[in-house]
Amino acid sequence: MDFLNEVTSRYPEAVSFAPGRPHEQFFEGVDPGRLIRRYQDHLRATGATPREAQRRVLQYGAAAGIINDLLARALGREQGLEVIGEDLVVTVGAQEGIFLSLLVLSGPERGPVLVTDPCYVGASGAARLLGLDLVAVAAHEGASAPRADALREVVAGLRRDGRPPRVLYTIPDFANPGGYTMTVGERRELIAAAGELGLLIIEDSPYVFTAPRDERVPTLKALDDPADPRVIHIGTFAKTGLPGARVGYVVADQRVTGPAGESTLAAQIATAKSMVTLNTSPIGQAVVGGLLLELEEQDRLPGEDRGAFYRASLAHLLSALDAQLGQHPRLRDRVRWNRPDGGFFVVVTCDFPVPEELLEVSGRDFGVLWTPMSHFSLDDDPTVRRRLRLACSYLSEQQIDIGVERLARFLAWAAAGAQGTADV
Amino acid sequence: MDFLNEVTSRYPEAVSFAPGRPHEQFFEGVDPGRLIRRYQDHLRATGATPREAQRRVLQYGAAAGIINDLLARALGREQGLEVIGEDLVVTVGAQEGIFLSLLVLSGPERGPVLVTDPCYVGASGAARLLGLDLVAVAAHEGASAPRADALREVVAGLRRDGRPPRVLYTIPDFANPGGYTMTVGERRELIAAAGELGLLIIEDSPYVFTAPRDERVPTLKALDDPADPRVIHIGTFAKTGLPGARVGYVVADQRVTGPAGESTLAAQIATAKSMVTLNTSPIGQAVVGGLLLELEEQDRLPGEDRGAFYRASLAHLLSALDAQLGQHPRLRDRVRWNRPDGGFFVVVTCDFPVPEELLEVSGRDFGVLWTPMSHFSLDDDPTVRRRLRLACSYLSEQQIDIGVERLARFLAWAAAGAQGTADV
Repeated sequence: MDFLNEVTSRYPEAVSFAPGRPHEQFFEGVDPGRLIRRYQDHLRATGATPREAQRRVLQYGAAAGIINDLLARALGREQGLEVIGEDLVVTVGAQEGIFLSLLVLSGPERGPVLVTDPCYVGASGAARLLGLDLVAVAAHEGASAPRADALREVVAGLRRDGRPPRVLYTIPDFANPGGYTMTVGERRELIAAAGELGLLIIEDSPYVFTAPRDERVPTLKALDDPADPRVIHIGTFAKTGLPGARVGYVVADQRVTGPAGESTLAAQIATAKSMVTLNTSPIGQAVVGGLLLELEEQDRLPGEDRGAFYRASLAHLLSALDAQLGQHPRLRDRVRWNRPDGGFFVVVTCDFPVPEELLEVSGRDFGVLWTPMSHFSLDDDPTVRRRLRLACSYLSEQQIDIGVERLARFLAWAAAGAQGTADV
Repeated sequence: MDFLNEVTSRYPEAVSFAPGRPHEQFFEGVDPGRLIRRYQDHLRATGATPREAQRRVLQYGAAAGIINDLLARALGREQGLEVIGEDLVVTVGAQEGIFLSLLVLSGPERGPVLVTDPCYVGASGAARLLGLDLVAVAAHEGASAPRADALREVVAGLRRDGRPPRVLYTIPDFANPGGYTMTVGERRELIAAAGELGLLIIEDSPYVFTAPRDERVPTLKALDDPADPRVIHIGTFAKTGLPGARVGYVVADQRVTGPAGESTLAAQIATAKSMVTLNTSPIGQAVVGGLLLELEEQDRLPGEDRGAFYRASLAHLLSALDAQLGQHPRLRDRVRWNRPDGGFFVVVTCDFPVPEELLEVSGRDFGVLWTPMSHFSLDDDPTVRRRLRLACSYLSEQQIDIGVERLARFLAWAAAGAQGTADV
């Protein structure tokens, strides 16, 4: 990531397909102060004195969070989840949710974490930082979701080796980077397998909002068995709200027994959080609280107003790839890409190498940047060096057009053997 | 901490000497939206377009932070430190600074962390969460700062055992809970010993602002050798600004060699941070940025306007203890306490037990709460059960008077043998 940021900062004029950031048109006219006041108005309307409303936002707060009731309501409206505030921990973005879940769930014996390969770098990086091994579970051909039969096999093997895993991490909707969305059947199979195997599943869910409201596949958490819950659900307001608030959440309604007696897994995660960040900025939480109140009032779901924009961007990127790469005399038989229905990402696969080392020349000589797939790979599989990830969320359609044109020229150069300087 | 919060929430009418929170009079009239606008005005005045100013606060930002230049200037004004933005990481409060420093500095071999006993629970808790051993270094009699000779001895012993430590954690000013402030001579000795032993010192510095500007002892970082820096300095705006912003920082100007070549230790900490919380809320940072700009304009140091208030609270608490405990016929010979010159805390030592188990009855029957010293203790030393910590920062003088009167009644009851129900 350092290398990528460094290259990106050196070529500010390049069109960058690297960052999976929200488009900045959604920041226009947004006033965080107004959202904070909206949240404080709500506190006063529900019984708080002005002094209490001020304290709630400006003082330290509970490690588990201060907007849990609003969040629980939003999850009910969005996914039909019947959770209460005590089942939730508000985290510093989804990233802290992933980090804390891995920290708490890997347990004192620090068993390996199950993932698919490629894997979102925020999950693999957090596991590595904690010294946890990553073990890949095979996916269906062309998909990026773990197969239930492969899961059984991997777990059996690890148990034989005396390294029993306790947790699987996955992004079921429009996976980053793979783009795949699991079917309802695959989701049910995965939850059933987790139940049999005594595993918990960390469901990372940042992109589900990019599907139309009536076409969404139920989340793993919505399909979970309340009597024996297997799913820890992680969400974020970075894409549906404001990244600058750094507010995400973990739903962990499992009953667990710890040193302090029986509690929810959420309470255990909150205890760990109190030693990592103490609590999530109440000011940031108030901003998101204000957003949630507005959405409730308008009967909209988080990010619902943005889904159409991102679907159009993705469709535009796919059309541009069809036109520029699919029709290119030197590329059309040598380059292919997946066609996700949503999310922010497309993965391009070449029959020639496009490794991380070429990013510099791509930025400098061709004015286009992308993310090497090696960032998401668990091992040094050479096929990874022939793949790159494109994100379209941050760009306008015009930037996408220019960027894909430049990408075509870069790839044609790389296909010709990446010899000498670029012919630009 | 869970137990303490739980008891506190059950007796909301009790006077609580437990939380080291800032007094809420400092929240009156504070508008985070205005501070954010102040920061954005500054961005525009120094060349940003309105769109860039909006992006800076609402979009994702660099893991190391966005207000590093303002912070570096504030540290120059406050402590005479000559640091630049690249030497700094903005963290989710001091807590994340402590957690990340321990994570990065303990290294792959996860050597033990050196502390004094008692130790701030945020540091010992973070170390335990990371699976790191804690080893105590003896302090001077009545003091809570590590002795340089004891440090040499402990390190030699650990090296003989094949467990070389790399880092010492300490609060040199008005320690929590010990209250001691190291002399300049003790600071110089400690830094010299760290240099000899190849150790780094984590200096946690939340309370230095409670001393008058002209009476402050230079921080360890201000006394550090720029040619061979030994000190990682951690600060926070929770006490001098707003806890709700959750903004702290780490100064780590050490040059280190890692997998990505040579960098500052701050850059390594920022890389670890990108896998824990990604970045500190830019909205929270903007609030603190606005505060720093106001302080600069007024030629004030962070917290300078509050130091006198907290000194008065502490003096008031000590007077009340003198009057209520020092004159109490059943307590005057059986109870003593330290007399810190600043900070938020006083430690009371009894010749009878006041263990955690009595907190419940103290809250229920006597209407007063406090923090058991066992929270800060590394082991089960029985003398710890005769000590409790009082914080005065959160209370008015009137509340302190009422609270100490109740405390006297509770202690008299405990001194009498803690038998039967309370005589209230």
